[in-house]
Amino acid sequence: MAENAQGTQNTENTENVRNTQNTENTEGGDTRVSLLGLGAMGGALAEALVKAGLRTTVWNRSAGKADALVAHGAVEAASAAEAVRASRLVVVCLFDHDSVHEVLDPLVGDLAGRTLVNLTTTKPEQARQLAAWAAEAGVAYLDGGIMAVPSMIGRPEASILYSGSEEVFRRHEALFGLWATGTYYGEDAGLASLYDFALLSSMYVMFAGFLHGAALLAPAGVSAGRFAQMAAPWLTAMTGGFAGFAEVVDGGDYTVAGQQSLEFSNLGLFVEASAEQGVSAEPIAMVQRLIQRQVDAGHGTEGFARIIESLKNPAV
Amino acid sequence: MAENAQGTQNTENTENVRNTQNTENTEGGDTRVSLLGLGAMGGALAEALVKAGLRTTVWNRSAGKADALVAHGAVEAASAAEAVRASRLVVVCLFDHDSVHEVLDPLVGDLAGRTLVNLTTTKPEQARQLAAWAAEAGVAYLDGGIMAVPSMIGRPEASILYSGSEEVFRRHEALFGLWATGTYYGEDAGLASLYDFALLSSMYVMFAGFLHGAALLAPAGVSAGRFAQMAAPWLTAMTGGFAGFAEVVDGGDYTVAGQQSLEFSNLGLFVEASAEQGVSAEPIAMVQRLIQRQVDAGHGTEGFARIIESLKNPAV
Repeated sequence: MAENAQGTQNTENTENVRNTQNTENTEGGDTRVSLLGLGAMGGALAEALVKAGLRTTVWNRSAGKADALVAHGAVEAASAAEAVRASRLVVVCLFDHDSVHEVLDPLVGDLAGRTLVNLTTTKPEQARQLAAWAAEAGVAYLDGGIMAVPSMIGRPEASILYSGSEEVFRRHEALFGLWATGTYYGEDAGLASLYDFALLSSMYVMFAGFLHGAALLAPAGVSAGRFAQMAAPWLTAMTGGFAGFAEVVDGGDYTVAGQQSLEFSNLGLFVEASAEQGVSAEPIAMVQRLIQRQVDAGHGTEGFARIIESLKNPAV
Repeated sequence: MAENAQGTQNTENTENVRNTQNTENTEGGDTRVSLLGLGAMGGALAEALVKAGLRTTVWNRSAGKADALVAHGAVEAASAAEAVRASRLVVVCLFDHDSVHEVLDPLVGDLAGRTLVNLTTTKPEQARQLAAWAAEAGVAYLDGGIMAVPSMIGRPEASILYSGSEEVFRRHEALFGLWATGTYYGEDAGLASLYDFALLSSMYVMFAGFLHGAALLAPAGVSAGRFAQMAAPWLTAMTGGFAGFAEVVDGGDYTVAGQQSLEFSNLGLFVEASAEQGVSAEPIAMVQRLIQRQVDAGHGTEGFARIIESLKNPAV
């Protein structure tokens, strides 16, 4: 590591040299980037940068994760501090929110004046907390939520949601394009995580619903593969209902005509049928509870979209 | 009603005449059909038959539901018995399983030798019970599960799933095509309901997941309409994962390489984030419980599809 140019620069590092580098990087395109955290996702992100010919400095807490990257031209930093000092643009993709603080808190002085892009999975409130921490430290902060598995990185169907500093997003948009389709959601640093969680959460819930259907059919000798062939186009078609629900929710009037009422949506039969097939009713019982709370509150004749009120008001 | 030809035939009805009619109907196409139950769905089914020019006899427990149908050429029977006697093919679309027995039990003698198509929403075990009841009574039985709202009836995107007598399904396939795309699933009369419940249940669970995402984003000022625009293509893309889950489930080996592990799928952050946004975590907490039970049983390194074991074994 210490043999190469980047390593030499790091060793020579002074306030002055670093500031010069930063200024150069601002003008001359994002050719230098440091990436901290080489798990499956961090490694995939680093690989995309190296393949694109960017001067990429990498660091991982445990050794041995950078070898393949170094073979392709990455520079391995001997410490997180060295990695931070190597580039104006510092990307972290660590284990969790606490890891980010453990790695970066001691380097707050080195980070000042640089740009931090945090692709670690963090909750919205944690992203907001990191943004405040960065602002305090004089660090430009952009948060990202990755909607992809590592093998998808570098393909346009991968998606990364960004929020925080719009200036940072615009400056590095081309670099972000090496990873995935990048979309900016706003100055509130928690937004990317919020969108990420909303989308991933709805995905996991859909997966559980699919597997519940497969479990229901299994006792009748129907394979999960057969059900998958039916459920994929069926649920795809049913996503067509989202816009209608949203219109009612955003309009705030659940009594609009033409909706399926909550009373009509009684899922008691589904819950019973699950039990009769010897299958857990948990997924559909969850929906039935959301319905029942609204019916109990006197809204049975209103539309199905009203179950969002059970979600928005956990105590109701 | 008594003025028209169908009514006259009913009045004149004898064992002999009825048997003759049945024989004629078997050969000459399904031109006569009786439909009992004129709720929103039954009314839509009857309307499609009347519009196609079929000699349609209709009956509803409460009066006034048949007027529009009669104006378009339907015959209103004065009693359920009269409706049953009017056609060899008897379709029921009643409130629930108990309603079917209440209406048809007294008419078991009239039904003998006829064909009963039950489109009432019933549980798989109820459909099987009705099939056994019909077999005992000498009635050919076909069960149907309607995958459509009433306004969709008559359009090919509406779907009705059938199971029970294959002979009945084949004989009336053209008539069923007037309502929806009809598909036959097998001699087990409970299959149509089972598929119906599996598909509808997965749909309701997906809707709850979507509305949970919308609820999460609401405090940040994101409209449900904006989220719908993102969630519909996202979840559509994610239905592409069903086939892979199914392959693992049907293969029975949850340790196959390349799967996202249950440990990695820990949704604790999602549950916490929901609470931090002031939103109920119920939909995602349901998935997390299914995951946790498998992790607790020592399967944390196995694939996500393993949550189906939590569903197949409610006690685990």
